[in-house]
Amino acid sequence: MSEAIAGRLREQIEFLCAIDELKSVQRQTTLLDGSRRENSAEHSWHLALYALVLAEYADDDLDLGRVLRMVLVHDIVEIDAGDTYIYDEQGQETKEERERQAADRLFALLPDDQAGVLRAAWDEFEERRTPEARFAYAIDRLQPLLHNHRTHGFAWRRHGITVDQVYDKNHPIRDGAPRLWELARELVEKSAQRGDLKR
Amino acid sequence: MSEAIAGRLREQIEFLCAIDELKSVQRQTTLLDGSRRENSAEHSWHLALYALVLAEYADDDLDLGRVLRMVLVHDIVEIDAGDTYIYDEQGQETKEERERQAADRLFALLPDDQAGVLRAAWDEFEERRTPEARFAYAIDRLQPLLHNHRTHGFAWRRHGITVDQVYDKNHPIRDGAPRLWELARELVEKSAQRGDLKR
Repeated sequence: MSEAIAGRLREQIEFLCAIDELKSVQRQTTLLDGSRRENSAEHSWHLALYALVLAEYADDDLDLGRVLRMVLVHDIVEIDAGDTYIYDEQGQETKEERERQAADRLFALLPDDQAGVLRAAWDEFEERRTPEARFAYAIDRLQPLLHNHRTHGFAWRRHGITVDQVYDKNHPIRDGAPRLWELARELVEKSAQRGDLKR
Repeated sequence: MSEAIAGRLREQIEFLCAIDELKSVQRQTTLLDGSRRENSAEHSWHLALYALVLAEYADDDLDLGRVLRMVLVHDIVEIDAGDTYIYDEQGQETKEERERQAADRLFALLPDDQAGVLRAAWDEFEERRTPEARFAYAIDRLQPLLHNHRTHGFAWRRHGITVDQVYDKNHPIRDGAPRLWELARELVEKSAQRGDLKR
């Protein structure tokens, strides 16, 4: 192996080892069997499957490869910045800056060309200007909502979340996948009727 | 939402909920910080990042979307069949049949068209006839080898694995990504020198 390739490969391997830590970032969402909280690495895998299976519910024809790249990298910044619960208003205020710094550090572990590609995917997700980004954002909201619905409001109950808060924070589902918004509303209303979510 | 779409979406959601169980399938490999064993869902996410970062080391130009689809679905059968350690010779004898039955059940939860697409991806991975499948298989072997190397042979030591066994079982790395095979050999030799892997 030439020296240049060896150096490039070394950087790539260091990045792949650094992101192993995403498996230790806990989210508020629980697994469906209620056994433990979900981590951000397995959540990202789950979202990639959501993308493969639900892409037809986007309003536009999507470049699925771009959606996959976004959902696979979108949470990597949490290695430094931690997972910020969407209903944590204080955390939300500092989230953008904390995650930007994390992106600066983590993607820079890669060779420049690849750092650029993955950072661009992360930026695209955050900016939500493309149909692909809006769809990726939508499924990132739908998955925890579905897990809450199926686990009698596991995280909602613990944090005393209300129907209004859920509607307020989850409108990206409507923006990225209008037909999935109908499903989301149905789940929210059923959860509220069962008393798993406060009115 | 029309009745037909609602039915289709219901099947898709049931599949996405069923595969949540992959997060509870433990592998022999440990996280790099040694805190716990890795599960097959977060492993699949990690492999997808390996694919995004290391595709250039395949011998052929790859359709990266196909590689991603394969690594994202390749372990789903373990929900029913469990993770079979590559050095477990008895387990390997029954693995193919157990996993085939699991694939029959799990992919069939989806609408027929999508069941066909994802089952085809799983079959392609298992058959290793395309460059994409051989590359996916190669990184699926490289990742645990790298984790063993970095954790002083965590799983190798526990199971008394030898250098010969590692070379014997990991030749798919050479077949799918010859330039990564050079790295793999270097890691194996260093591990043996340190006494983390038996000669």
